[in-house]
Amino acid sequence: MKPLQDLYPDDFAHCYGCGRLNAEGLHIKSEWQGGEAVARFRPAAEHIALPGFVYGGLIASLIDCHAMATAAAASMEKAGATPGVDPTPRFVTASLQVDYLRPTPLGPEIELRSRATELGERKVIVEVVLRAGDFECARGRVVAVRMPAAMAQPTPDTSR
Amino acid sequence: MKPLQDLYPDDFAHCYGCGRLNAEGLHIKSEWQGGEAVARFRPAAEHIALPGFVYGGLIASLIDCHAMATAAAASMEKAGATPGVDPTPRFVTASLQVDYLRPTPLGPEIELRSRATELGERKVIVEVVLRAGDFECARGRVVAVRMPAAMAQPTPDTSR
Repeated sequence: MKPLQDLYPDDFAHCYGCGRLNAEGLHIKSEWQGGEAVARFRPAAEHIALPGFVYGGLIASLIDCHAMATAAAASMEKAGATPGVDPTPRFVTASLQVDYLRPTPLGPEIELRSRATELGERKVIVEVVLRAGDFECARGRVVAVRMPAAMAQPTPDTSR
Repeated sequence: MKPLQDLYPDDFAHCYGCGRLNAEGLHIKSEWQGGEAVARFRPAAEHIALPGFVYGGLIASLIDCHAMATAAAASMEKAGATPGVDPTPRFVTASLQVDYLRPTPLGPEIELRSRATELGERKVIVEVVLRAGDFECARGRVVAVRMPAAMAQPTPDTSR
């Protein structure tokens, strides 16, 4: 079983958060484990907010990319495909809600666990729990939508 | 008038998103303009989501740090201090809601504009509009709280 993000098609594997083809990126990797997606991530020293704590933007980023993979895996399973083996379809974020329950200590490995709580054909809602060390530090609720065909090509605006 | 983040006390100027003392960070800078905070940011090539579009985690990060500065500036003004001149007090994020209205093109400068819509002593709610080129691409609603005293020192957990 491979990480879900490693099975995104090459054309959609450049994401700063989770793309295997982004040399500068975070390389978030999520695995499908019986109806749940799990990711682990070790923040770098520069991912600091205040001294001793993880930057909230990183937490939002981890939740975002992990949730997109979760939405894809849950959709695959519903359609009879095998997450972690078959190609992962690309979802994009419609909305992201993060509740920061307590400051996330910078040092311990971060673990994310998530499930699809609503699974439509086009739209999937994913709930994520983020822990660091012994603490539940954040929760996310993410609305994922299947990548619109129009996003498969850059728009003219990108050349500005 | 200086950017609000450049007036955070040295001990709280390490944030990956907006800390002037973080060599690896994004250096988000927000200016106070008559009741509104404005920030401009040019994403790097690696801040890609799908080809041609900006990574949603970056958008969440920009909204987060910009909203904390907005909360601080609005609170300062209410207390009779001058945002952009006096030291900026540090707020932290309690919750972050981002609605991705349309894909954000990668290329044009991003502009964020925000206001405090609820201004309590401890808790401030900030609403943010993010534009790229001619498009309104995202909206954020962020709950900021004045930094708890307990966050002023690293907890023992950070050494793990």
